[in-house]
Amino acid sequence: MQNWEQMDAIAITTAVQTGETTARAVTEAALQQIEVGNPALNAFTEVLAEQALASADAVDGAIAQGKDAGPLAGVPFAVKDLYDVSGMTTLAGSKINRDNPPATQDATAVARLKQAGAILVGTLHMDEYAYGFVTINSHYGATYNPHDVSRVAGGSSGGSAAAVAGGLIPLSLGTDTNGSIRVPASLCGILGLKPTYGRLSRAGVALFSTSLDHVGPFARSVRDIAASFDAMQGADLRDPICTERSPEPTLPQLPQGLNELTIAVADDHFATGASPDIFAALETVAKTLNAEKRVTIPEAKRARAAAYIITSCEGTNLHFSRLKERPMDFDPATRDRFLSGAFIPGHWYTQAQRFRRWYRDRVRELFEQVDLILAPTTPCVAPKLEQQTLVIDGEEVLLRPNLGLYTQPLSFIGLPVLSVPVQQPDGLPIGIQIIAAPYQEAKILRAAAVLEAAGVIAAPAVVGH
Amino acid sequence: MQNWEQMDAIAITTAVQTGETTARAVTEAALQQIEVGNPALNAFTEVLAEQALASADAVDGAIAQGKDAGPLAGVPFAVKDLYDVSGMTTLAGSKINRDNPPATQDATAVARLKQAGAILVGTLHMDEYAYGFVTINSHYGATYNPHDVSRVAGGSSGGSAAAVAGGLIPLSLGTDTNGSIRVPASLCGILGLKPTYGRLSRAGVALFSTSLDHVGPFARSVRDIAASFDAMQGADLRDPICTERSPEPTLPQLPQGLNELTIAVADDHFATGASPDIFAALETVAKTLNAEKRVTIPEAKRARAAAYIITSCEGTNLHFSRLKERPMDFDPATRDRFLSGAFIPGHWYTQAQRFRRWYRDRVRELFEQVDLILAPTTPCVAPKLEQQTLVIDGEEVLLRPNLGLYTQPLSFIGLPVLSVPVQQPDGLPIGIQIIAAPYQEAKILRAAAVLEAAGVIAAPAVVGH
Repeated sequence: MQNWEQMDAIAITTAVQTGETTARAVTEAALQQIEVGNPALNAFTEVLAEQALASADAVDGAIAQGKDAGPLAGVPFAVKDLYDVSGMTTLAGSKINRDNPPATQDATAVARLKQAGAILVGTLHMDEYAYGFVTINSHYGATYNPHDVSRVAGGSSGGSAAAVAGGLIPLSLGTDTNGSIRVPASLCGILGLKPTYGRLSRAGVALFSTSLDHVGPFARSVRDIAASFDAMQGADLRDPICTERSPEPTLPQLPQGLNELTIAVADDHFATGASPDIFAALETVAKTLNAEKRVTIPEAKRARAAAYIITSCEGTNLHFSRLKERPMDFDPATRDRFLSGAFIPGHWYTQAQRFRRWYRDRVRELFEQVDLILAPTTPCVAPKLEQQTLVIDGEEVLLRPNLGLYTQPLSFIGLPVLSVPVQQPDGLPIGIQIIAAPYQEAKILRAAAVLEAAGVIAAPAVVGH
Repeated sequence: MQNWEQMDAIAITTAVQTGETTARAVTEAALQQIEVGNPALNAFTEVLAEQALASADAVDGAIAQGKDAGPLAGVPFAVKDLYDVSGMTTLAGSKINRDNPPATQDATAVARLKQAGAILVGTLHMDEYAYGFVTINSHYGATYNPHDVSRVAGGSSGGSAAAVAGGLIPLSLGTDTNGSIRVPASLCGILGLKPTYGRLSRAGVALFSTSLDHVGPFARSVRDIAASFDAMQGADLRDPICTERSPEPTLPQLPQGLNELTIAVADDHFATGASPDIFAALETVAKTLNAEKRVTIPEAKRARAAAYIITSCEGTNLHFSRLKERPMDFDPATRDRFLSGAFIPGHWYTQAQRFRRWYRDRVRELFEQVDLILAPTTPCVAPKLEQQTLVIDGEEVLLRPNLGLYTQPLSFIGLPVLSVPVQQPDGLPIGIQIIAAPYQEAKILRAAAVLEAAGVIAAPAVVGH
């Protein structure tokens, strides 16, 4: 099987299920690709060759017996190292967690992808405890951007994005609190979906900020995002916030086109601060989708501030005992963030939650007028590894927090968002966010399919592997 | 009409509706009773004679025309001075709020009692901003216990309890965050219902701690509690947490008796710390209800601590701007509580909320085994006004916070609780809590009706007015 790293998950599983190739052959190719490509990217924390090959053989056995091997049969995938994998210790990018016992059960999202026939090949690097936008980790090193290894992959799901963008695997899972799926998807030039808050089970996932954390997939095509999202959907008794019993699958809706969708571009906060190439890419997307309307998401700056306060209090709460006992075993960047979080007053937190309800209601009203909203994902293309600041509207500001400039105000109220990679033949990848009302992922994927069919979005092939 | 202050609301409305008396006569009697009795109790903030008489005339007019004047037609009632009353400034026991404009609309609970034909005769004293268990207020003075005016009425709804216990009115409304209905009901010897969190609308009520505040009635009979509760039930668009569309009325269920109810007495935290007369009263109630089972509500002490943290952060959040601008216009006791609340870290608040979910789930499991749980309301009878400490299990502790020893762990997870006054012919009143699973108020009222029929509970007549 040649050039399979250019193929998406659906193409791979089709080849496996039609007998054109085998799950073992695909898995061996993926393991080979990881061996060759990973040293330059530092995306993988652990490669699970043995269990991956055993799973592949089981899939091939099922197909040989004429059984249904699942909608993702034979598709290699890997997960951010905060998903529990049975028998492995979940590190969450930390040193301290090495002392934890191995997980006794797969995270629900991992179990559901396996049940769909996908082959788990490993775990992926991240910012420590998911607190960061760059995947520069003092314990495990930086993950490098496949399009330019002198640049960051984005974070905190940087390994998940780099592994897919670099052609090592077609599918991965990350998590998004304030942008940790969308930012690396944007900087690495692939698709990354942050679903509606609570829609996909977080059971068996090491949490960072409980009222903000989401799980979601990275892939190189719209149909792969839809297929993996569908495989993970459905209520989970292990996760009290994941209660949707009979979700509609999104994949069959994909050829539908735009039909009657009303699509708008976000102005105000989302229309300033990014470099001109970003806004040019947004304009291309908007034109293709006939998005002539403009809408204002009110108080987006305040929403960012409130998201910081909530993240900080909830994150510090989850890590406080470790912070007291082993402060020097934290990544210094993460330690400082959690320490400062310990001093945020409780009445600020309650104020932030009150504001959140107000803001959520205002944004819900917007979605009575429009189906989808478009906005940039990041204010810039992938920065250099050593870059510390960024100029936004003429002001030099810290780079790392501001990579979330456009993502934070959206995840704050749990809206589903897909970051799509706009074709940039001569430049670094640029991502655009397609945003919907809660539980309207299907609308997002329909619009993304239109962009893909028009050749406006595509995960660019990486040169050099 | 004689001795009407000994009659309950249902007896009064029956007399009004059958033409035995008029709403005007009842209202005039109530206003007279307030004029005579209030100086000794200091329960009323404001008496609304003119509008009360106008309302009474309207009720009498409706009855004369053969119209339905409502299930509480002609019943005088008054409300804690944090319920909005159209045209009046809601003070919430504070000096600062005197500068606020008058309310433009009645609180939903007030509007619904008026709609049921009840006659609003005034507003009632409270601890400033509802933060206290004694109703000793630096701006408006203390409210005195009708059974012994050298003792506290309890708080924060002290005026509401004293007005009913003292025979000034048959019905009043209070609010309960950590015990502010049940504590004064217990110390004043009347019934006080704290319904399920979210079941009665809080629209138009000055909040203290948003995730803990409840509205509820005080009365001298079980049927009055049921009738006023029923009149206030039902979804309210003005209150997003009050969503129950078609609630079952509880009043018609009252003669049902115990039927198949399983009733238990709470042990552990709830079985130590009170004086022996309290436990003797509890034993009498338990015997009458055949409550032989014992159940343990786990981690009740931790629940109290968590309730303090949440109260403090949410309360400080609501009052912080006033606290910064006009600190010296606060009641000193309240100011100190809010100021200390400003320093509670946000990660403590999130920890308290996490514990709360765990604890709620454990207590829900208990209610799979039992229908009702019995516990003391207060650890002691009404303390002297000057009393500062209390001995609990041999340790001298501060009195004021510990009046909520047994109430806080229950309201913390929104359980419905009725405090009932156990007959104490020779002593000060003693209250017992009857506790149910969420939305099971009807079961509580059935048990209370059995106790009332057996003569075990009764609001004692006050001597001396």
